[in-house]
Amino acid sequence: MSAGLLDRATIAAEFRRIQQEICASLEKLDGVGRFEEDAWQREGGGGGLTRVIANGDLIEKGGVNFSEVHGELTGQAAKALQIQGNAFYATGVSIVLHGNNPWVPTIHMNIRYFEVDSGARWFGGGIDLTPMYVEEQAAAHFHRRLKGVCDLWDPTFHAEYKRWADDYFFIPHRNETRGIGGIFYDRIQPSETLPAEKIFGFTCAVGRLFAPLYAEVADLPRDRAFTAAEKDWQLLRRGRYVEFNLVHDRGTRFGLETGGRTESILMSLPADARWSYDHRPEPGSPEAATLALLRKGIDWAAR
Amino acid sequence: MSAGLLDRATIAAEFRRIQQEICASLEKLDGVGRFEEDAWQREGGGGGLTRVIANGDLIEKGGVNFSEVHGELTGQAAKALQIQGNAFYATGVSIVLHGNNPWVPTIHMNIRYFEVDSGARWFGGGIDLTPMYVEEQAAAHFHRRLKGVCDLWDPTFHAEYKRWADDYFFIPHRNETRGIGGIFYDRIQPSETLPAEKIFGFTCAVGRLFAPLYAEVADLPRDRAFTAAEKDWQLLRRGRYVEFNLVHDRGTRFGLETGGRTESILMSLPADARWSYDHRPEPGSPEAATLALLRKGIDWAAR
Repeated sequence: MSAGLLDRATIAAEFRRIQQEICASLEKLDGVGRFEEDAWQREGGGGGLTRVIANGDLIEKGGVNFSEVHGELTGQAAKALQIQGNAFYATGVSIVLHGNNPWVPTIHMNIRYFEVDSGARWFGGGIDLTPMYVEEQAAAHFHRRLKGVCDLWDPTFHAEYKRWADDYFFIPHRNETRGIGGIFYDRIQPSETLPAEKIFGFTCAVGRLFAPLYAEVADLPRDRAFTAAEKDWQLLRRGRYVEFNLVHDRGTRFGLETGGRTESILMSLPADARWSYDHRPEPGSPEAATLALLRKGIDWAAR
Repeated sequence: MSAGLLDRATIAAEFRRIQQEICASLEKLDGVGRFEEDAWQREGGGGGLTRVIANGDLIEKGGVNFSEVHGELTGQAAKALQIQGNAFYATGVSIVLHGNNPWVPTIHMNIRYFEVDSGARWFGGGIDLTPMYVEEQAAAHFHRRLKGVCDLWDPTFHAEYKRWADDYFFIPHRNETRGIGGIFYDRIQPSETLPAEKIFGFTCAVGRLFAPLYAEVADLPRDRAFTAAEKDWQLLRRGRYVEFNLVHDRGTRFGLETGGRTESILMSLPADARWSYDHRPEPGSPEAATLALLRKGIDWAAR
């Protein structure tokens, strides 16, 4: 890989700081929940620091995982990644937070950096939101905030990465998006027009947007009253979250198939999920209205 | 395919009868729950009859699905099946039952028949058990009953199909079996030494063993008292069931990837499931004893 100042150590150190900042912000926001730490080593090289929070005032179950791993690429992993090279290095921060209250959306954030010994290196990342009930004003605010950060870095980022999120967070067997999307980008390789410093800077900005943005979408509804039927709906929607993560999410599947640390990978799953045969919300209900909005291509930021 | 008397219509008719017999037996056993019927058509050809039961006295959520589908094999499906041929025909009965009481095991049964226009045809099937708490006596009884039916048909079946179940119902990312296994066989093609009539006869015997065998393992513990901690453990074990089905089960993944009927495929999922970060039972507890028995290669029938 190219030397320069932006080496893997610099990137990993910054990702680590982002993890710490986010955990500190989330503890303050939650008020009750405290992160527990679980430092782990990977047999093939490297390790990570998984930080989990449970039974908070706002957050029912969540995790903020940092990892920095390296080693030999097995045949299966190399095939899945479609890359040349034997040795790899990967570092990233990955977050999923599930709230107690059905009006609080589930949120996911990931920033990552990858290199192989053939010299290839790339960045990826994104933030996306999964409300149990899609509220148009909150959804528009969420997307406008993402657009704001994208636009600060490059006028082309938002349209491209928003569409990428729509395509990625889609459940084909349900013909639904997982939530209202957000931004997603992957395997962005540095080039003359897009230097590593710029992608890295943008990626850190995404990481640092996470905590304030979550506060903006989660703090208002956290104490809102809800019915038993609304709680049921939350559990059914969490079932869909589980379906997406276990059936479709490439990161989850890649991790499980290549011997990643299972508990850190599956910390993304909710505390409780429910399935009910062929559940269909009543026409005209808020649940039906939400399903109608779990579609690709909605220009939320313009609403 | 070879004509003879044992054609697809005969096989499908017998599978349909087995579905009806099982549903009648299960309603009688449950005493409260009643099956609801959902007849469906497949766009590419054929259809099925999904029968679901929920909120029974014994069964919390379950389904007994019959399907008979035919059509063109898409590239993805042909590749997954590794077969030659363009047109296929498949019929089968598939069952999963989740009990209310944590002492009642989850059970799964499947019998299936498949043919392609190149002339290949095969049978598959099996029954396996997933107790939340492995009780050695009940586990041994379950396996001895399966061995009994296998031995009536062929002295080689049980050892082979028991090992096949151990290998199939395994969760690599947890290094656990899903439950205590049972028997599993797939793509058994008729031959001179193993005529279609024999495989089909055995397959129907497996189907007809299901209802009495479930009664034997489920009726005794259905009213047993349980604690909140035992209920929690049931939910965590159901989380593992979901993980196996969505991440590893080839039938589930094949169905979802090739546009199968989602609700019929995912009727196998429990009503409720739970995940807790890095949950570890206390050493010496019944939960730890169960985990120690979720291993391949235990010769239950000989215990």
